[in-house]
Amino acid sequence: MAEYRTFTTDDAMRFADEHSGLFGDHSKLSCEEFGDGNLNLVFRVSNDKGTSLIVKQALPYARCVGESWPLTIDRARIEAEVLLKHRKLCPDHTVEVLHYDAEQAAILMEDLKDYRILRTELISGKQFAHLAPQLASYLAQTLYFTSDFALTGPNKKQQVGRFLNPELCLITEDLFFTDPYCNHERNNIHTAINSDAQQLWHDEALQAEVAQLKADFLSKPQALLHGDVHSGSIFINDENCKLIDAEFGFYGPIGFDVGSLVGNLLLNYLGHFGLTADDDTRQQHQDYLQQQISLLWQQFSQQFKQLMETECREPSLQNSRYQQHFLQQIFADALGYAGCELIRRTVGLAHVADLDSISDSDLRAKSERKALQLGRELIIQRRELSNIDQVLTLLRHLK
Amino acid sequence: MAEYRTFTTDDAMRFADEHSGLFGDHSKLSCEEFGDGNLNLVFRVSNDKGTSLIVKQALPYARCVGESWPLTIDRARIEAEVLLKHRKLCPDHTVEVLHYDAEQAAILMEDLKDYRILRTELISGKQFAHLAPQLASYLAQTLYFTSDFALTGPNKKQQVGRFLNPELCLITEDLFFTDPYCNHERNNIHTAINSDAQQLWHDEALQAEVAQLKADFLSKPQALLHGDVHSGSIFINDENCKLIDAEFGFYGPIGFDVGSLVGNLLLNYLGHFGLTADDDTRQQHQDYLQQQISLLWQQFSQQFKQLMETECREPSLQNSRYQQHFLQQIFADALGYAGCELIRRTVGLAHVADLDSISDSDLRAKSERKALQLGRELIIQRRELSNIDQVLTLLRHLK
Repeated sequence: MAEYRTFTTDDAMRFADEHSGLFGDHSKLSCEEFGDGNLNLVFRVSNDKGTSLIVKQALPYARCVGESWPLTIDRARIEAEVLLKHRKLCPDHTVEVLHYDAEQAAILMEDLKDYRILRTELISGKQFAHLAPQLASYLAQTLYFTSDFALTGPNKKQQVGRFLNPELCLITEDLFFTDPYCNHERNNIHTAINSDAQQLWHDEALQAEVAQLKADFLSKPQALLHGDVHSGSIFINDENCKLIDAEFGFYGPIGFDVGSLVGNLLLNYLGHFGLTADDDTRQQHQDYLQQQISLLWQQFSQQFKQLMETECREPSLQNSRYQQHFLQQIFADALGYAGCELIRRTVGLAHVADLDSISDSDLRAKSERKALQLGRELIIQRRELSNIDQVLTLLRHLK
Repeated sequence: MAEYRTFTTDDAMRFADEHSGLFGDHSKLSCEEFGDGNLNLVFRVSNDKGTSLIVKQALPYARCVGESWPLTIDRARIEAEVLLKHRKLCPDHTVEVLHYDAEQAAILMEDLKDYRILRTELISGKQFAHLAPQLASYLAQTLYFTSDFALTGPNKKQQVGRFLNPELCLITEDLFFTDPYCNHERNNIHTAINSDAQQLWHDEALQAEVAQLKADFLSKPQALLHGDVHSGSIFINDENCKLIDAEFGFYGPIGFDVGSLVGNLLLNYLGHFGLTADDDTRQQHQDYLQQQISLLWQQFSQQFKQLMETECREPSLQNSRYQQHFLQQIFADALGYAGCELIRRTVGLAHVADLDSISDSDLRAKSERKALQLGRELIIQRRELSNIDQVLTLLRHLK
């Protein structure tokens, strides 16, 4: 193939067949496009024996906005390279990339057809005991081994240069940190909470802390982040879970990936006030989420601590006081970014079904107000909150 | 010219003549090599009418160590581009680059023959009332306008990518942050202070803070630094001063440039205990240095504050509480890096004449011990010291 062109289903089939031996000779292939994302075409290519693969092609514009928002297709390279690197570091929980084609901005990868999207599962009240331990492990492995603890200065700088990802970072810079705190036309605000949203636009104490978090997002390249760890980027089943969609990957603050995930678990917790009418059922699911959030931080921090103790290749950073301080900083950052995620998913452009699918407008508004309140508290108090239990206490005492 | 080769004086003359019209036709040119640095050849090319220019060529190894320490000549590009950018932002106090040749790794620049090296002047007790105001202005202009306050996310990232400078950063990473705190063979320790130096190798509290400062040096690309603002990189006369030697330039923590300069003024202050026998003369020079250090911080912070208030192009960072916090952070960082400079210039590989030229061994040891003591205090207390007067009080009360 030569110059870039948008794939038809035939192109996708040919691409999958050419770059994988999985389908065998003379297989009958079929193909459907089923992307529901905003930036890409996603095809499933299957043969008549039940084997299937995914072809993901980057569009040269953001699909949700249309061709007026051009986006470089170099993001397919970023996605492929981040996934390949993360898979090397954590093979169990990263989707497998089989082939990447730079010209066509297309990635051939395994089809997680035995998995479902975590967000949908959590909304339906499903529980997975392995969620927190597996994601803690994914985060600890991928973030530790791409950080200054594991790489030499020159090697790290080379990696930073490969993953600058200016265009997709800009989307986050705008949607995550800017829009929700001003009267921006991109915002999407449920009418019932209009006045609550407006309070954000005049809250200078909050804005000062969000400015700090944004400045760190811009200038704290601690590790190669996934960059978009929300519950729509996680595929799960009863045994395992895997991360997909790494096109927002870049070198940024470690707390951003951790906090994005925590924020999404909190959004589900708050959503269930409106999603689940039965008190016992709701309580039981919310208890599960609390336990997972607690486990996630405990296991992530424990693994990261152990890696710092045993796998630190940079002599100056082998100091245990410094390492303790570093972990406490990740915790504060993570709470701050979790708070931002709560707020931007409530009033910003890109919402989540955990809140939006609450059919009763009053109940939805109640959950949304809790999200704004908790988001603010996490951001403002992030340096004073010293352990995850204090965060859960805050969560249980929301009005 | 084609492939890289080390310049002879004839090559340097030809290069200067070719790329500048300053010498006119049929001038009689002469040339001398006078580099005393470790990484480059430096030629002065003059005609018979008193016009002269400097040709600086990067060597493919570190001159002080020999050919065993290879260094990319791409640093000449970094130097040329940093100087050009800084000159645009602060034309009065940045040396003028007339031409840069990538193949030959050679820079043609103005000859600051009416200027002298600041370090030599300060050692001889010379005073310049304009020193602090001019350098404050250089630092404020160059650092502000290359920061997140002034650049968009994508533009900033592009700049970060151009100035990763892995090899020269590694020199600083090693010599500045690692060697002095362990028994490294590169260290250069005056025998009389051997036991004081050894204390550094077991000082875990200090090492934890230095680890934090090093981690920020590695992962805090706040602005395009000069990267080597010591008093040997500053040329001065009674009216003006100019920065040269920007090959260590990279995107790093703003406090590093500010702190390097403060550290060098402090080194001169401490050196004069051994350099100047007469009490009145010494006191008078040290009073001058205190006043300059105070002015430097006051004027730098005032200008930076005003730029944040009036020239901030990033809406999220226009919050005054955040800006106040940011400036306080620069202050703490600057004190930390000043402390590191005091320590590494005392026991590390690269010393300064402010201490080394003290002929009496006891007096030299006294000044060196003060440097180590003050360095440690600045690093440890940097977040508690809230203004520059407290720093000067610390300085005056050294034992």
